[in-house]
Amino acid sequence: MSQRLRLLIEYDGRPYSGWQRQDGQPTVQAALERAAEALDGQPVLVQGAGRTDTGVHATGQVAHLELQTPRPVRKLADALNHHLRPDPVAVLKVEEVDESFHARFSATGRAYRYIIQTRRAHLTFDRGLIWRTPFKLDVDAMQEAANHLIGEHDFTTFRDTACQAKSPVKTLDTLNVACLADRIEITTTARSFLHRQVRSITGSLVEVGRGQQKPGWMKEILEARDRTACGPVAPADGLYLERVMYGDGG
Amino acid sequence: MSQRLRLLIEYDGRPYSGWQRQDGQPTVQAALERAAEALDGQPVLVQGAGRTDTGVHATGQVAHLELQTPRPVRKLADALNHHLRPDPVAVLKVEEVDESFHARFSATGRAYRYIIQTRRAHLTFDRGLIWRTPFKLDVDAMQEAANHLIGEHDFTTFRDTACQAKSPVKTLDTLNVACLADRIEITTTARSFLHRQVRSITGSLVEVGRGQQKPGWMKEILEARDRTACGPVAPADGLYLERVMYGDGG
Repeated sequence: MSQRLRLLIEYDGRPYSGWQRQDGQPTVQAALERAAEALDGQPVLVQGAGRTDTGVHATGQVAHLELQTPRPVRKLADALNHHLRPDPVAVLKVEEVDESFHARFSATGRAYRYIIQTRRAHLTFDRGLIWRTPFKLDVDAMQEAANHLIGEHDFTTFRDTACQAKSPVKTLDTLNVACLADRIEITTTARSFLHRQVRSITGSLVEVGRGQQKPGWMKEILEARDRTACGPVAPADGLYLERVMYGDGG
Repeated sequence: MSQRLRLLIEYDGRPYSGWQRQDGQPTVQAALERAAEALDGQPVLVQGAGRTDTGVHATGQVAHLELQTPRPVRKLADALNHHLRPDPVAVLKVEEVDESFHARFSATGRAYRYIIQTRRAHLTFDRGLIWRTPFKLDVDAMQEAANHLIGEHDFTTFRDTACQAKSPVKTLDTLNVACLADRIEITTTARSFLHRQVRSITGSLVEVGRGQQKPGWMKEILEARDRTACGPVAPADGLYLERVMYGDGG
C-alpha cells in the first residue's frame, strides 16, 4: 500500500526556472522529484499547489506525492532534505494525507508576499530576494490604490498574455501595503491568482507610490480590462508564495 | 587639496577572503580600492576600522580614504556604488572628515552581531549568512554563561593562535543573547576584539545552549587562559560587524 504525503516547502527561486519540470532546466519540482526518487527507489511525481515562475520564491509552498514504500512520517522531512542538500529547497513539514488530498485542487486559498526595499545603494545580502527601488514610495497612496482591486473583478489588465486560466475574473480577499523601516511589503490572498497577477499589481502600485500616477488610476486601468493599460510588471525577485490554505486550518 | 572621506559600508562576506587586500584573492578592501581608483583616476588606499575574516559580513563597517580630486560629498555614495556594482559591497553613507580622522585608530568601539537559526532543515535563502544548528538552544543558560565574560579579562582562551594583538586582555562592555522566534542573536560591544574572539565566544556559548556544558563552565575556560579549553569556534557565516563607534555619536 502506498503512502500519500503532504509537504510544506521553502525555496530560494534564484537558481530555478520556476516550479514546473521542464527538460534541461533546473526547476524546484525536478529537485524534489529527484530527492523523492532517491528515497523511494523509483520515479515519483510531486504535485505543487502553485506553479511559481522563474526566480519566484516560496516560504510556504505545498505539494503532495506518493511513496511506494511507506516510512515513519516523522523521519521523512530529514530524509528528503538529506537528498535535497545543497539545493536551496527545504522540506519544512511532512504529513500523511488520504488519497483524496490534492495539493493544487484541494487548495482553497493562496497568500503571496511581495517585498520592496527603497534605497539608493544596490543590494548586498538580498540580491534577487527583494525588489530595490531608488525612490521613496507613498504607502498610503499605494493602499488607497490597492483598495480598488479588493473583491471580485475582471483582472484582464493584470494578467499575463500567456495566462491559461479560463476566466480573467478573480476575487482578491485581501491586498495590504505595509511599511517596515525601509521595506514595503504587499500581501494578498485569494482562492487563486492569474499568471503574473501579483507582479502586475505590484508594478502598478509602485507607479502610484512613486507619484507617477494617482490612486484613482488603479480603478481606471482595472476597468479598462486591457493588458496594455498595466504599469511595468514587477520583477520576480521580491515575490514569495507564503501560504496555501486548505479549509482545514492548514 | 585632497579630500578625506569617511565611508559607512555594508557587505556580504561570502565571496570574499575577508576585508584585507591580498594578492590574487577577492577582498572587500580591494573591491573598494578599485571603485575609488575608477573614480579618482589614481590608486587610492582604503583603510577599514575592522579587518573582518573570510566569509564575515558587515552592516556597519567604516573606512576612510583620500581623493585627490574633491567632489560634492552628496554624490559620492552613488558614484562609488556605480563602480562597485555588481559586487555585494555597498557604500551607505559618505562624510567629509578632517585629516586627523583614521577609521581604525580613531575608533572607540566596535559592535558585532552573531545570528544563529535553530532548525532541522538546511538553509535556503540565508546559506552563508546565518549559522544553522539543528538542536534547540537554552537562551537563558547562554546569557548566564555570557555574563561571566563581561568586563575586563584575559581572553587567551577565546583568541585565535594567529592573533597579533599585543595583549590578550580586553574589556567586553556588553554581551547579550536574545531570542527572536527561531533565531538567536548574540550582540557584543568592546573597544576592540581579539582575532576570532566573537566566534570563539559564540561557539562556547552554543555548547552551553545545547546542554553540553553548564553556564559555570564558561568561567572555568575563561580562567584557564588556554586556547585548547575553548569550545568549537563558530563559523564565519553568522557574524556581522554591525557598528564602529567614534565617541562622536557616530
